[in-house]
Amino acid sequence: MKIGIVFGGVSFEHEISIVSSIAMKDVLKDELIYIFLDQDRTFYHIPTATIKSKLFSSGEYKKCDTLTLKKGGFSKKAMFGEKELDVDVLLNLTHGGDGEDGLLASLFEFNNLAYIGPRKGACAVAFNKFLTKGYAASTGVKTIDYNYFTKDDEVIVDTFPVIIKPVTLGSSIGVSIVKSQEELNYALDVAFEFDDAIIIEPFISGIKEYNLAGCKVNGEFLFSIIEEPQKAEFLDFDKKYLDFARTSTALTADLSETMQEKVKETFKKVYNNTFEGSLIRCDLFIENDEVYLNEINPIPGSMANYLFEDFNAVLTSLAKALPKTRQIKVDYAYVNKIQASKGK
Amino acid sequence: MKIGIVFGGVSFEHEISIVSSIAMKDVLKDELIYIFLDQDRTFYHIPTATIKSKLFSSGEYKKCDTLTLKKGGFSKKAMFGEKELDVDVLLNLTHGGDGEDGLLASLFEFNNLAYIGPRKGACAVAFNKFLTKGYAASTGVKTIDYNYFTKDDEVIVDTFPVIIKPVTLGSSIGVSIVKSQEELNYALDVAFEFDDAIIIEPFISGIKEYNLAGCKVNGEFLFSIIEEPQKAEFLDFDKKYLDFARTSTALTADLSETMQEKVKETFKKVYNNTFEGSLIRCDLFIENDEVYLNEINPIPGSMANYLFEDFNAVLTSLAKALPKTRQIKVDYAYVNKIQASKGK
Repeated sequence: MKIGIVFGGVSFEHEISIVSSIAMKDVLKDELIYIFLDQDRTFYHIPTATIKSKLFSSGEYKKCDTLTLKKGGFSKKAMFGEKELDVDVLLNLTHGGDGEDGLLASLFEFNNLAYIGPRKGACAVAFNKFLTKGYAASTGVKTIDYNYFTKDDEVIVDTFPVIIKPVTLGSSIGVSIVKSQEELNYALDVAFEFDDAIIIEPFISGIKEYNLAGCKVNGEFLFSIIEEPQKAEFLDFDKKYLDFARTSTALTADLSETMQEKVKETFKKVYNNTFEGSLIRCDLFIENDEVYLNEINPIPGSMANYLFEDFNAVLTSLAKALPKTRQIKVDYAYVNKIQASKGK
Repeated sequence: MKIGIVFGGVSFEHEISIVSSIAMKDVLKDELIYIFLDQDRTFYHIPTATIKSKLFSSGEYKKCDTLTLKKGGFSKKAMFGEKELDVDVLLNLTHGGDGEDGLLASLFEFNNLAYIGPRKGACAVAFNKFLTKGYAASTGVKTIDYNYFTKDDEVIVDTFPVIIKPVTLGSSIGVSIVKSQEELNYALDVAFEFDDAIIIEPFISGIKEYNLAGCKVNGEFLFSIIEEPQKAEFLDFDKKYLDFARTSTALTADLSETMQEKVKETFKKVYNNTFEGSLIRCDLFIENDEVYLNEINPIPGSMANYLFEDFNAVLTSLAKALPKTRQIKVDYAYVNKIQASKGK
């Protein structure tokens, strides 16, 4: 199968998308075609043999062929006319903005392209931590209590410590743990630098965190192992960053059968049919044998490959079972009826 | 101001988008430029002077100039090269699919176009009635109880009557009131013909319904009157359809000052900052002096012009206060750091 990896994007996670994408060379056996979206929203075809992170930081990628997105695929200028890029399926590996907010999903849908990745409705609820809370509630999944504030709101915190999160940033960007009133204003400034809205949750020191990745293929869930990620007090961008380059297999968390089942049931409720077509990683908390959803990563770092025994097989089977777009036949029954009644 | 009305789209509400858009000629004083998206997802420039619904039902629109969407605007082929379509701001009037599901919002954002209409995150929560429930909950707004089912689920209903709604259809398409077990299967067939997921709510006969439209301009809410819409048992597509051609002013509902305030407070919570850039209509229920959100219409029929005293002034002031896209500067700090630590 020829997999077109779409990465980069106008996003605070632009760089980690590059690292994530390069990691795919080590874990996917398929033919990979690299499609880079730069900060000016131009697509480039990056040769697979020579791809490396420096190509992007140096700006050298601009020497690569530019691509035009059209109905049915990407194409580049050729000697005579245009040449289609030969791709069977796209893999959306654009973390954060553009990739996880539904923008690329919309472009792909508009142009009739098959892709692995969250559909636009799924993006909205995963990308915005505030909407994730509401989504979780409607699927019957617990989350940590929270308050929501926008830029102009007066922010009042009664009990410390709290954790402050911009609603639409990933990879812990703009996130702070605040232990006292004195630290609050600075943390708010940091968070609002990245976003117009935030959520504030109580910070529960030492809460157990678990990650589970998976996807639904022909009605069956394919799960990864459940990992208890290594963490400092919380993972900041620098530390989380390492996840994006990870390709070695992780160790299974020490959880009872019952709790493993509970974690998987929670994942299923979250995945629902909303996330069909994508391989997601759920970051969950467990406290007093209750499972709480922390975050949905609809395009996890390096596709969470390190959590799967046979990542290549999982991704390939997902690629072959992508959701079909519902065919909508436009007709003019009502317009015709009105015209008939008007007699014209 | 030159307003480009984008309408049509691959949608079950394609036709009513046409009717809605033509109605704008009667209520907007600005120069209007009509941009039609047909069922093959080609854009056409329809001359304003001669636009009428028959042009579309007959297929005659195909004789109009096609448009290409590019960075900064729409353009058409000209004698020499290309000619840009002269538009100051777009008005997204594509009801249902493409318009209200975030697809066009993404295309506009990708191409840096200014537009009146819901942003992509707002689309997701308004378009999907299931996500609307979760969204309402997280903004502290009440909704009617519901159950959510996907196509493969066993649907059990204990107490009749209920109302069955496909989650992503507007204008009452696929909606049924079910009074007994015998009627259930047929109603489910109808609903699942249009969608892969549904919600089922208790049907509360005679519940009072109210509509309020509005938008936020520079931090201030501009509200329409509150209308108690005329309705039969519930409004089916035929009856609701008339709304889309409405241009005469509605009558204010008979509500106490207190209840009017409650309705407006509910609207504000729903609008939040999520719907910035759009003029929305909230359909609300009132029972026992409690306000419940029924539906968010982020692109209401004929823009709910008939609810405003001076619709033209409201739309123009919204057009001048559209939300700015946050500028994201891509840098390569982390990639550079890794390269430095690797010594290459």
